[in-house]
Amino acid sequence: MRNIKLVLEYDGTNYHGWQTQPNLPTLQDTLEESLAKLTKTPIRIIGAGRTDTGVHAEGQVANFHTESEIPVVAFQKGLNAMLPRDIVVCSATEVPPEFHARFSATRRRYRYTILNREYPSALLRQTSYCFSKEIDISRANDLCQMLIGTHDFTSFQKVGSDRINPVCEIYEAHWWQKDTYVYFEIEADAFLRGMVRAITGTVLKYIKHQEAETQLRRILDAKDRAAAGMSAPAHGLSLIEVKYNA
Amino acid sequence: MRNIKLVLEYDGTNYHGWQTQPNLPTLQDTLEESLAKLTKTPIRIIGAGRTDTGVHAEGQVANFHTESEIPVVAFQKGLNAMLPRDIVVCSATEVPPEFHARFSATRRRYRYTILNREYPSALLRQTSYCFSKEIDISRANDLCQMLIGTHDFTSFQKVGSDRINPVCEIYEAHWWQKDTYVYFEIEADAFLRGMVRAITGTVLKYIKHQEAETQLRRILDAKDRAAAGMSAPAHGLSLIEVKYNA
Repeated sequence: MRNIKLVLEYDGTNYHGWQTQPNLPTLQDTLEESLAKLTKTPIRIIGAGRTDTGVHAEGQVANFHTESEIPVVAFQKGLNAMLPRDIVVCSATEVPPEFHARFSATRRRYRYTILNREYPSALLRQTSYCFSKEIDISRANDLCQMLIGTHDFTSFQKVGSDRINPVCEIYEAHWWQKDTYVYFEIEADAFLRGMVRAITGTVLKYIKHQEAETQLRRILDAKDRAAAGMSAPAHGLSLIEVKYNA
Repeated sequence: MRNIKLVLEYDGTNYHGWQTQPNLPTLQDTLEESLAKLTKTPIRIIGAGRTDTGVHAEGQVANFHTESEIPVVAFQKGLNAMLPRDIVVCSATEVPPEFHARFSATRRRYRYTILNREYPSALLRQTSYCFSKEIDISRANDLCQMLIGTHDFTSFQKVGSDRINPVCEIYEAHWWQKDTYVYFEIEADAFLRGMVRAITGTVLKYIKHQEAETQLRRILDAKDRAAAGMSAPAHGLSLIEVKYNA
């Protein structure tokens, strides 16, 4: 049985997230359909991150097992020829049988894109969140220092999530600005459901607050989603990289 | 009668170009409909550049005359609230009565975006043309030197265009690379219909040709569209700026 690893880029606008759902278009279902056509057998695909409805990816990783003898490069070309244009296979490689896109992943990296002006963009309307209030980048970075390390992120987890362990280790949480765009990149061993959007929304809410540090500490300690701010919208978010131990 | 100048950004994917057409969605019609709703009178809008089907804009300029007493800032906000999300008013300003978006314009600037790799982008599929052959940037720039200045561009004009004067003055024609993207920006007093796409396609066709300069000279001198290369696709093109004398 061969094990094939895919790196994927997708525009999540028209999908109800990664994970298969009855009667709704999802990325997993769409990929599995194309894989089944290509290999002429049903195939189950495993994604590294279960991105939510409307969330994008520039570096999602997935894998699947197959008896097919199709050359690995033909998986990329064949899938790209069959998939809708909002899903693209950036690479396909053969990996050892034990490789598991989700469980073998050691780090995930997300980027949140904010258009920091009064009016949205026509061209990047589906990949940036228009937020008109001033964002003090150095203040946002100071504030996010508190998140670095190992914490219980229950306060930033979508209510009703099924994950048992709410503890994640954050390696990096960095804000920067380029022209009218502000970017927030965050890397962790794992993320709870809705976590990046909840952190982004909460930082944007408290950044101008005089006691922002105290507020953020209080939210983190509360272990209660109701304590944090609103989630930033899905369409600003993209899973940009998944890392594995060599 | 007030004269209002708009700077517009739009995603041209879902429009049959700028100019009004019977029974087809165009940018001009869509803007005029929103303006009529806002001012409660029919309004004719004038665009600086009549972008083709599928072509985008980051800096299209338009103007219209109105008796409406709506504050100028409300034109921006009001239109942005009414327009579909793929058209955005970046600014609205009141200008002297003689200002004409098209005839007063002294320079137009277009950018053509090429994704220079084997497979397209999912996220930027509607704003970049995927071209996998190697592009020698310095060679492209050398080749385009020939276009600078005043020339008859009949060979790069879409067949059946109604423009009488095929002479344009090119001020700048510049290629550059950033990561996997290659950009071509060109600025002129005016452009013939389809001209930027025909130039882009022709440069991409001849760039690896040993006698590319001779070929391009022959094409320019032929004054015949059939002499030039294929047009690069519309979705890579964007009208990024229109300039006026102060």
